[in-house]
Amino acid sequence: LPVPVAAGAPAPPVDPFAVANVVGLLAFAVAGALKAADADLDLFGVVVLGVLTALGGGVTRDVLVGRVPAALTSSGDVAVALVGVVVGLAVAGRARAASTTLGVGVGARVRVRDHPAFLVSDAVGLAAFAATGALVGVDAGLTPFGAVVLATLTAVGGGSIADLMIGRTPSVLREDFYATPAVLGGSTFALAAAVAPTGVPTLACFAVTLGVRLLALRYDWHLPTV
Amino acid sequence: LPVPVAAGAPAPPVDPFAVANVVGLLAFAVAGALKAADADLDLFGVVVLGVLTALGGGVTRDVLVGRVPAALTSSGDVAVALVGVVVGLAVAGRARAASTTLGVGVGARVRVRDHPAFLVSDAVGLAAFAATGALVGVDAGLTPFGAVVLATLTAVGGGSIADLMIGRTPSVLREDFYATPAVLGGSTFALAAAVAPTGVPTLACFAVTLGVRLLALRYDWHLPTV
Amino acid sequence: LPVPVAAGAPAPPVDPFAVANVVGLLAFAVAGALKAADADLDLFGVVVLGVLTALGGGVTRDVLVGRVPAALTSSGDVAVALVGVVVGLAVAGRARAASTTLGVGVGARVRVRDHPAFLVSDAVGLAAFAATGALVGVDAGLTPFGAVVLATLTAVGGGSIADLMIGRTPSVLREDFYATPAVLGGSTFALAAAVAPTGVPTLACFAVTLGVRLLALRYDWHLPTV
Repeated sequence: LPVPVAAGAPAPPVDPFAVANVVGLLAFAVAGALKAADADLDLFGVVVLGVLTALGGGVTRDVLVGRVPAALTSSGDVAVALVGVVVGLAVAGRARAASTTLGVGVGARVRVRDHPAFLVSDAVGLAAFAATGALVGVDAGLTPFGAVVLATLTAVGGGSIADLMIGRTPSVLREDFYATPAVLGGSTFALAAAVAPTGVPTLACFAVTLGVRLLALRYDWHLPTV
Repeated sequence: LPVPVAAGAPAPPVDPFAVANVVGLLAFAVAGALKAADADLDLFGVVVLGVLTALGGGVTRDVLVGRVPAALTSSGDVAVALVGVVVGLAVAGRARAASTTLGVGVGARVRVRDHPAFLVSDAVGLAAFAATGALVGVDAGLTPFGAVVLATLTAVGGGSIADLMIGRTPSVLREDFYATPAVLGGSTFALAAAVAPTGVPTLACFAVTLGVRLLALRYDWHLPTV
Repeated sequence: LPVPVAAGAPAPPVDPFAVANVVGLLAFAVAGALKAADADLDLFGVVVLGVLTALGGGVTRDVLVGRVPAALTSSGDVAVALVGVVVGLAVAGRARAASTTLGVGVGARVRVRDHPAFLVSDAVGLAAFAATGALVGVDAGLTPFGAVVLATLTAVGGGSIADLMIGRTPSVLREDFYATPAVLGGSTFALAAAVAPTGVPTLACFAVTLGVRLLALRYDWHLPTV
């Protein structure tokens, strides 16, 4: 993934945006692997769902703008996603073992996904992916609508594909304030790109997406049904 | 979307093909939004399904021929689709209100989709989208089979993706004479493209798709199961 | 599809790899058509699922590397897939007729798919598609991971899309040793491509995929769930 850096700035020892991207890849891969284990997929299915959840949004983004997906041409993100799958397998295996002796397996997996550390990591990933998606969209000359679509798809596309694979309506379509922060972040990027120097739109998108997502978690926001 | 115009003809004040395209975008977006409301999606889900139903076929078409989707690089069709979503939300909201007081909400939404004005608008959209898809396919140098696939996908792809999102087998695969008119229209385009001047294949595809679809509605045609 | 031929070798009268590809297209199209008939799709749905099962993996592969899908720009594979659909329709029709008189229809269709001749043909197709996918991936400059993904997707993508269309979790994610042979074959290709002359990686991938798949059938191998 391209890592946006403010023009002219000296490269920091560790790029905070790259860190956010890694945190997101890990959280998404763990979530996908646990979802697959809950759906009784076999080992291949768990690996596929973990990797798809982490990388599927970016693959969709790249296909839409006519690029060969970065996940197929470079190895960094793939390696991080596979680490996340291994972590997910370990968590699922421990939950399975606990379930066998204590009957609390599914509960243990749910607890992992409801743990504040997991939810914050997932929100960081949502924000990093939305920012990357919006950046790719604007660089590809898309309209503001197109950039918002790409931000949202990059952020929630992987999880949505994973949901479809196990026969579920993507959860973002039913019980939102997971996609909405990405929509707002992408819109912020599109607005900022018209007026602010390079780097600012990415940071603004990241901050808005993360902030709105954390507020939605804190106050249990939901969109209305119709 | 490219608007085919007969070579040498003076541009008419209002291009009838562009009108057909707008009618189709509106009808498809309304249908998608109502489908989402029936499936109890939230507001984000209703917007996504409405927009996907209207634009998803064209996006699929563009990806298959290696183009960045027109829906992400120009704003006209997107604006029309969003208007359709708003109309769909209004219809769904009125139906919901009626349901609360009278217990007839779902019935009201069904009535909208079974209304002759809606069905004819939807058929006009099917025909316009099939014609655009076949044109893009032939322009991209596809085989006749490829052009028929592109005509059909452009016409029924958006609704099929929306069906998949809410866990349904695409209705065109179960109870047809909705995709078949597009297949016949696309085949007409491919045949006409070999012998007739520019513009004629588009018109012939539009006429055949629309005519067959209206006959299928009038006489309740169905394909056999096997 | 590109048919790999060892450099400098005289063209054989019949390329065995092309034969394997045709066998696979036929087996996949028959399987898809029977799956659709079992799911009570109509005639259009049966044709779509048969063609998608045979060609969908290759279409996905081509889209990912930025090519217009070969299935839309050349006619050979399409014609073979349509022959397979016709065979599938005939088998399904005979089974339906038997069912009406004897109550054994579904059993008859299952017997076709469990027949050793069908299972071997399907395994040959799996191996041929995996080899083509890996070759396209390496030619497109993908990483070894990307080449393995492309081998696997080309081999199992069509059947998985067909599963999704009828509301099922792709069977390769639940009860494997169908995708795993393609993963191992693709990995073999990626390794061999680094050291062996043109043609060898393709043959090695084909042999490993076919061999592992036949062993899995013979000894009823399954991957563990987590």
